[in-house]
Amino acid sequence: MDNQVNDTNKMLAIAGNFYAVGVGPGSVDLLTIRAAELIRTADVIIAPRSRKTDVSLAMQTVADFIDGQEIIDHVYAMTRDAGATIASWAKVAQLVAKRCSEGKSVVQITIGDPLIYSTSCYLLTLVRELLTDEKVHVVPGISAFQASACLLDEPLTMQEDRMTLMPATDIARVEEALDHCETLVLYKAGKSITELADLLGRRGLLDRARVVCYAEQPDRQFVSTDLREAANASHGYMATVLVHVGRQGWPDSEANSK
Amino acid sequence: MDNQVNDTNKMLAIAGNFYAVGVGPGSVDLLTIRAAELIRTADVIIAPRSRKTDVSLAMQTVADFIDGQEIIDHVYAMTRDAGATIASWAKVAQLVAKRCSEGKSVVQITIGDPLIYSTSCYLLTLVRELLTDEKVHVVPGISAFQASACLLDEPLTMQEDRMTLMPATDIARVEEALDHCETLVLYKAGKSITELADLLGRRGLLDRARVVCYAEQPDRQFVSTDLREAANASHGYMATVLVHVGRQGWPDSEANSK
Repeated sequence: MDNQVNDTNKMLAIAGNFYAVGVGPGSVDLLTIRAAELIRTADVIIAPRSRKTDVSLAMQTVADFIDGQEIIDHVYAMTRDAGATIASWAKVAQLVAKRCSEGKSVVQITIGDPLIYSTSCYLLTLVRELLTDEKVHVVPGISAFQASACLLDEPLTMQEDRMTLMPATDIARVEEALDHCETLVLYKAGKSITELADLLGRRGLLDRARVVCYAEQPDRQFVSTDLREAANASHGYMATVLVHVGRQGWPDSEANSK
Repeated sequence: MDNQVNDTNKMLAIAGNFYAVGVGPGSVDLLTIRAAELIRTADVIIAPRSRKTDVSLAMQTVADFIDGQEIIDHVYAMTRDAGATIASWAKVAQLVAKRCSEGKSVVQITIGDPLIYSTSCYLLTLVRELLTDEKVHVVPGISAFQASACLLDEPLTMQEDRMTLMPATDIARVEEALDHCETLVLYKAGKSITELADLLGRRGLLDRARVVCYAEQPDRQFVSTDLREAANASHGYMATVLVHVGRQGWPDSEANSK
């Protein structure tokens, strides 16, 4: 990698380069040092927000590191139409390429990790067609499932466990997944918590399920080990359900081997 | 949460408390700000290292934040024997409880995320039996699969994709997993890359596989889109294989709906 590194090994934003940067779940101190330094030293910040919300959660998260950067506030349609989604990002990609050609460094900030169910994936794909590979960088961020598991103090995976991460939108696919992993993490579960509680009840897994909404977002974080209780409240879109389906330990025959 | 927060919302280590802290894959600037601040302000650091290695990778990663803390260097047996593993951690848990009862703050550092295939899971379970819940905290870290995907600039999950994360140790289970996810992430793949290349070749997925070894570890990072090439080299234990099995887009019938 040809990234500029200063005395303490921090990566700083370089002229003409684009960075898709994950800012974590919402608490300012869950940014990585790299994310904070890139945001602090960038010329231009692309701040996406959904049409439904009047503030950008990503911008709120990084407010401490904003001081004079050009802010491009991109309002995207939160639609399940890939064509419309890509079209809305194509204009942003053109703008990114223009700023980079002017010698500016551009950072797109995104909540969570930029490669896990993120709007960054669309912009990244489009920008890669306009800039050379060496000028496109991705910086990981803490995803909501990690912050949620930490709030619960419970391991996600040990030994031979399989963990599956998926949206909760299709209950039949969720049921199928229960047969093929030891830990199931469901994103976007807000609208289907009652259905999930019914499914997990039928499967004898209700007491092995946890729900965390808005992990690490001050004022609205919600943690529960009771899905039925959570179903009675309204916790919006950003609900994560974790199900400890079982454990897959090391086989006895291999005990004491490396 | 009753954690002390300073003017910039940073969580600092509190007397009598234990923190299991993920330090990310190896680059100092991929620590979260929270991890760095807790390590900097802790009285005691538990630094685990495998019997096989002569240095603690976690300690190397956080060296910039060490200045006078008591360092407890715990050498654990890297064995697939859960009983021996737990026994080796039981002594450390007693020491953690003793330091906490003396009014010290204790941070265990661990590479990656402390809840994803981590030695932290054993210590955490044991410490929870000795301290009250309010004094036990877990701080997420960037896991190797996230750093690996960022080096490859490729989305892990979009839209309705399922991602499964598992060890590569049992090839039959890996083959089964290919039928139940769109993205398969395999940890601990170093010893089975040739077997994996054979399997993925049979399934027509070889050109959809990537291998990253020691992501974000200076001097030994290795990235390849050619599993056969990677199989010919020796890349040790910390190899991650990512397979883009397919995509699960939004259903057409739901296009334009929310």
